[in-house]
Amino acid sequence: MQKRAAAAAVVAIALSLITRLLVIAQSDPLSSWNDGPAKQAIAEFVRDTTTASGSHFVPVPERVATFDQDGTLWVEHPMYSQVMFCLDRMPAVVRQKPELANVEPLRTVLSGNHEAIAKLPTQELLKIVEATLSGIDTDRFQEEVTTWLGIARDPRWKRPYTELTYLPMLELMRYLRTNGYTTDIVTGGGQDFVRTYAESAYGIPPNQVVGTAGATKFEYDPNGKVLLMKEPKLLLNDNGPGKVEGIHLMIGRRPRAAFGNSTGDREMLEYTTGGSGRRLAMLVLHDDAMREYAYGPAHGLPETKVGTFSQTLYDEAKAKGWIVVSMKNDWSRIFAFEQPLQSPTVAR
Amino acid sequence: MQKRAAAAAVVAIALSLITRLLVIAQSDPLSSWNDGPAKQAIAEFVRDTTTASGSHFVPVPERVATFDQDGTLWVEHPMYSQVMFCLDRMPAVVRQKPELANVEPLRTVLSGNHEAIAKLPTQELLKIVEATLSGIDTDRFQEEVTTWLGIARDPRWKRPYTELTYLPMLELMRYLRTNGYTTDIVTGGGQDFVRTYAESAYGIPPNQVVGTAGATKFEYDPNGKVLLMKEPKLLLNDNGPGKVEGIHLMIGRRPRAAFGNSTGDREMLEYTTGGSGRRLAMLVLHDDAMREYAYGPAHGLPETKVGTFSQTLYDEAKAKGWIVVSMKNDWSRIFAFEQPLQSPTVAR
Repeated sequence: MQKRAAAAAVVAIALSLITRLLVIAQSDPLSSWNDGPAKQAIAEFVRDTTTASGSHFVPVPERVATFDQDGTLWVEHPMYSQVMFCLDRMPAVVRQKPELANVEPLRTVLSGNHEAIAKLPTQELLKIVEATLSGIDTDRFQEEVTTWLGIARDPRWKRPYTELTYLPMLELMRYLRTNGYTTDIVTGGGQDFVRTYAESAYGIPPNQVVGTAGATKFEYDPNGKVLLMKEPKLLLNDNGPGKVEGIHLMIGRRPRAAFGNSTGDREMLEYTTGGSGRRLAMLVLHDDAMREYAYGPAHGLPETKVGTFSQTLYDEAKAKGWIVVSMKNDWSRIFAFEQPLQSPTVAR
Repeated sequence: MQKRAAAAAVVAIALSLITRLLVIAQSDPLSSWNDGPAKQAIAEFVRDTTTASGSHFVPVPERVATFDQDGTLWVEHPMYSQVMFCLDRMPAVVRQKPELANVEPLRTVLSGNHEAIAKLPTQELLKIVEATLSGIDTDRFQEEVTTWLGIARDPRWKRPYTELTYLPMLELMRYLRTNGYTTDIVTGGGQDFVRTYAESAYGIPPNQVVGTAGATKFEYDPNGKVLLMKEPKLLLNDNGPGKVEGIHLMIGRRPRAAFGNSTGDREMLEYTTGGSGRRLAMLVLHDDAMREYAYGPAHGLPETKVGTFSQTLYDEAKAKGWIVVSMKNDWSRIFAFEQPLQSPTVAR
């Protein structure tokens, strides 16, 4: 009897331990992050800036964290989702304005030659974006994007683009919000485009999405109803130095933490870390060709024109103590639809 | 003994009643509003849009209320506070760029002739604003405004401008926030200017202040520190139709309620009430020359170029069911520093 009692006690203790371990595992707010310098830096930053008695304490209203979107929060390869939207919308645009069919770069786009399309310089892509994202009122534009997002599928994963968000970054944003931070998107992508899904995909309301923005024009329709027409006039080019201008215009506070993945995020990280007190700057490095994509050219990774992470940016990050996040080593899981790996080491 | 006990009971009941009345009086979130159609409209709007079982229920993320500032949240007569700031800053600007001294309208301004200054058309005032609000980095600008606000006094009340906020409107904003609304300022005034004090004066953080905004330029100072220089280039003229464009750009949601006081707020109110479901639109009428100012020219009030409330706007309000708030009749108290009136009827 004594033996059985002892055995029962051991089982009870073991069960209780397992339960506690499970609770701990489940309650890790960054469970898709492997232990390492990146995860540690995040935890220390949050601890330091939210400990009221500490010297690095930051009052809640000043807790602002900004996030690039393409390549930082979701997949940007082989091409930005918004460009895919614009390409899909081209035929409708040309039906409305047939004269555009013979003008470059629209001729190339309409040819359907993907290789030629992929080689178009950014300036030319912007022309397409301008043509496809204007001449429509803001309400109808939102409807069109929503409809497209429901139909369009990423060519590799055959899933809606909004499912290709990075789980570790979703966890990070939630973790920061739980700790009093506002999380703002600061994207080179179109502000009106990203706002249509930012709330459902990231939990970020429209007024916390800063993006490249065109002018709009107040009009009355024939029934006297107010319309806001999207104009082909650029107000804010929210990329590179434009991201800092966008942050000032739309947020009005210097971020305490900033997250990016390409040279277009450099100035935002410089601005963030240029302020006094504790700051956090992070760059996501796409070094996992198997689970996602691998491109740089930093760190000897393949060249790309979409989301370039230059060696110069990498060197600046190392020199200034910005954290470079390796998707391969720091993330145990990339997408929510993936099965979690058995052990983080498998991913290395 | 029975008599004394009865008397004690009466006193106790009376005391309890008084206490309860006091609690009710204190707990009225709109205690500076007299009972009347305006106060009632606010209460009904909030009740209807926050009752989960009702047909007019609005989910929390969509509860957006926008407020004009000058003449709606604080005093704008005899002249907008920001223009006073610009005028005070003129000598410093001219010291830096002496050639400006002989250019109109700066010559008029420097003459100190208040009558001539008051007659300057808006277009000319904008030139002054442009000259005085550019060529300085955003951090230093914020310091200068803060310093000025600490020193400058309104000529009539001899108080800092930030004390000349309307108590009923402060109560209204707090009441809306308590009920899940975000309160955004949408002002023709300079965005950078208003943001310096909006948090302390109104409890509104910088990213919820939409205003007239100039471009900024990302620069490095000689030490490699990031500076944002204010440029003399207008990005958003946040007045009239520009308020709707500003709301779309910075908030990205159509307001459920909007509050203004002049023709510059007309399009914002049209946009707000043009949406489906329950909406609230209000215009503050300055009809109390004794406690504040009286101007229209709506309703036979004196003409003004500062905060014009035209008869056309008044007629549109009446036709569309927008509420016109009479400062004289609807507000029992205008400023927090005022003693509350003994009885609301005294104010009529």
